[in-house]
Amino acid sequence: MPILNKDMTLCISLSGRPSNIGTRFHNYLYEELGLNFIYKAFSTDDLAGAIAGVRALGIRGCSVSMPFKEDVMALVDTIEESAAAIESVNTIVNDGGRLRASNTDFEAIADLIAGNQLDKEASVVVRGSGGMAKAVVAAFRAAGFEKLTVLARNQETGAALAAKYGYDYSAQEPAPGAQILVNVTPLGMDGAQSDVQAFSDEQIAAAKVVFDVVAFPSETPLILAARKAGKQVITGAEVIALQAAAQFEKYTGHGLSADQVARASEFSRQ
Amino acid sequence: MPILNKDMTLCISLSGRPSNIGTRFHNYLYEELGLNFIYKAFSTDDLAGAIAGVRALGIRGCSVSMPFKEDVMALVDTIEESAAAIESVNTIVNDGGRLRASNTDFEAIADLIAGNQLDKEASVVVRGSGGMAKAVVAAFRAAGFEKLTVLARNQETGAALAAKYGYDYSAQEPAPGAQILVNVTPLGMDGAQSDVQAFSDEQIAAAKVVFDVVAFPSETPLILAARKAGKQVITGAEVIALQAAAQFEKYTGHGLSADQVARASEFSRQ
Repeated sequence: MPILNKDMTLCISLSGRPSNIGTRFHNYLYEELGLNFIYKAFSTDDLAGAIAGVRALGIRGCSVSMPFKEDVMALVDTIEESAAAIESVNTIVNDGGRLRASNTDFEAIADLIAGNQLDKEASVVVRGSGGMAKAVVAAFRAAGFEKLTVLARNQETGAALAAKYGYDYSAQEPAPGAQILVNVTPLGMDGAQSDVQAFSDEQIAAAKVVFDVVAFPSETPLILAARKAGKQVITGAEVIALQAAAQFEKYTGHGLSADQVARASEFSRQ
Repeated sequence: MPILNKDMTLCISLSGRPSNIGTRFHNYLYEELGLNFIYKAFSTDDLAGAIAGVRALGIRGCSVSMPFKEDVMALVDTIEESAAAIESVNTIVNDGGRLRASNTDFEAIADLIAGNQLDKEASVVVRGSGGMAKAVVAAFRAAGFEKLTVLARNQETGAALAAKYGYDYSAQEPAPGAQILVNVTPLGMDGAQSDVQAFSDEQIAAAKVVFDVVAFPSETPLILAARKAGKQVITGAEVIALQAAAQFEKYTGHGLSADQVARASEFSRQ
């Protein structure tokens, strides 16, 4: 890596508890592609001041994580449909002082629904009611799906999410029969619930498509069971790769190959 | 250089027309010393927003150049004596959101006056009336010198500078006899006036000490003539080295050897 220089374009992230993943992902690819960019994670206790700094210092890109994804909306100039649909921003692009906000999680889910040619007549169960579940449910709504049930133990957030997008809510797993199963809970994720299968074998047997947003690992018990049952699967690794590539392209103008994303992702988690 | 990481401490500069010198100087030494720091030059058309960003993003250090050295005073929390004495800031240190402003040019001049044991009874002529001349005149005043003449073609700035610190002003070179001669004009600097000797041979012959603030090159016609006449000399290279080391130490807590400063300075100008 050459010594840093004044003309480097800075991109940053803002989050309550920065991890090293974004910093390593972006800088790895800047170096590989020979881009005169640097990327670094920040936290702040003054979001308005931080965004003022993004604007005033000409910081080109700003990735946004919890707890700033909603509050930042009042501080930008333009909110793209991807962020407006879920009232949540994870990406800000600075074009000469004009800040444009979007949500590449929503974009990635929407791209996967379209790219996998999911049938909008199909019935869908989405398990979960957090921020990412909102992106998933909104993307199914935007794609024209009519039959969707939000499945969540938390009645308050689950019912609110379903109602917001005009869908049904259930606290209990419905009888098998849904054609598309989507997990947006931590079930199957590294940690305490890593061996929990987010939908039953019976649900999987009755379904056509199984989509798990969990990315670490992406081969969750749910995905493994779905593969074994011969179902069409969509993994959290695909979500992460698409959203990261979208963010990278918005900041730099450079598209990424699947291989580049995979290698940078692996490097970023070391 | 290792891949960048989230824990790196960022230092920046703010100026109207950033050069690469500071960026290369600081990053060269960060690498040599193994410090987890990065440094990058910025410009801005919104100084208040940029300083809000310094504070909110926890940017550790901010070097300040023209045209921001005076306006930035209203945006910091503490102004040290070195900046207050000349109403000009070139260094901001951020301690957990509290911004402390100082002027390492003033500090460097003051250190050179003390370190070279200049006699405060001596008569001084300072040629020049710009921002650096103000630092020089203020430092002589702070050191207790009583006999000083500001020599400047610009009557307005020259007379104002002299009056501000209680000294005399002259538009014409006084008769030889001053014991300390200081050049703070571009005479002798690389460029159109590189062959101009800022004080005459007669002035040099009558003086004890010759001090030239010009640093590029530091062996100006004035310094060369003073060396030839066997006078005590202080060069612009010493000023630059001291101020850069002071700034580096304020940001990182690491002192620099003269050799480190010399090598980083040489690298920074390549």
